[in-house]
Amino acid sequence: MDTNDERFLREAIALAREGMDRNEGGPFGCVIVKDGEIIGRGNNKVTSSNDPTAHAEVLAIRASCQAIGSFQLDGCTLYTSCEPCPMCLGAIYWARPDRIVFAATRADAAAAGFDDQLIYDELPLPAEQRRIATEANVLRQEAQAVFKDWMSKADRTVY
Amino acid sequence: MDTNDERFLREAIALAREGMDRNEGGPFGCVIVKDGEIIGRGNNKVTSSNDPTAHAEVLAIRASCQAIGSFQLDGCTLYTSCEPCPMCLGAIYWARPDRIVFAATRADAAAAGFDDQLIYDELPLPAEQRRIATEANVLRQEAQAVFKDWMSKADRTVY
Repeated sequence: MDTNDERFLREAIALAREGMDRNEGGPFGCVIVKDGEIIGRGNNKVTSSNDPTAHAEVLAIRASCQAIGSFQLDGCTLYTSCEPCPMCLGAIYWARPDRIVFAATRADAAAAGFDDQLIYDELPLPAEQRRIATEANVLRQEAQAVFKDWMSKADRTVY
Repeated sequence: MDTNDERFLREAIALAREGMDRNEGGPFGCVIVKDGEIIGRGNNKVTSSNDPTAHAEVLAIRASCQAIGSFQLDGCTLYTSCEPCPMCLGAIYWARPDRIVFAATRADAAAAGFDDQLIYDELPLPAEQRRIATEANVLRQEAQAVFKDWMSKADRTVY
């Protein structure tokens, strides 16, 4: 393990503790590093901001993208105090950093009352078998028409 | 299909088109309904806001939670112009609405250049087999210590 990795991961763990102590949300922290410098930080703020998406990783990704003026995190490493939940992992894939380093595991999170496993279990299921009732393919052709126009849009920005 | 479902889903599809026409991001829209009224709206703003998490569903969830002052969407239905990506589906599970109604499928999204499928394929893999290089369980005990303190914290707010 690279000593820089340990240094940055300790910073993420410190953010987790500080956010918990300030009652901002769950005990999770994240920093994102580019060229040896932290470009964005986040700690969980779900309960204090009434935002279920305000996980440490999502907030760190948003802050980092604002800092560098890009919706992509090429060349970056994301350090997080705990294995990312499926939402955060999805956000990471859209942001496309080069590397992830995490400390605690999803099993540790579950033992602390954070049930990421339910979401990991639900995602691969067909929509009709999930716990949240889902109606699929309603007005599908009307939505497909929008995609068709997107594909023929000359000035579209792809992401 | 309930005619109200069609009405709200058409509103989500209209948001998808409007956001695309304003060059705010991809052609995706979402509305969230509680007690027969729309409480939050979202359309994709990834490219215009440099925020890879600014998907329609995430923005609609954030707006709705702000509107009702809660980090939970009990009793709500989420209408989205396209099957949610894994990030958005994760966000939906954290927000816990009662129901999801969507129009276009992930296959339609892929045909329009939005590769949710890669993320669906990556999530179930062990961390070391994913395309984004991941180092797991680094400094795990230090992070576990924070979870331990969380569990013994008298005034913690669970979510």
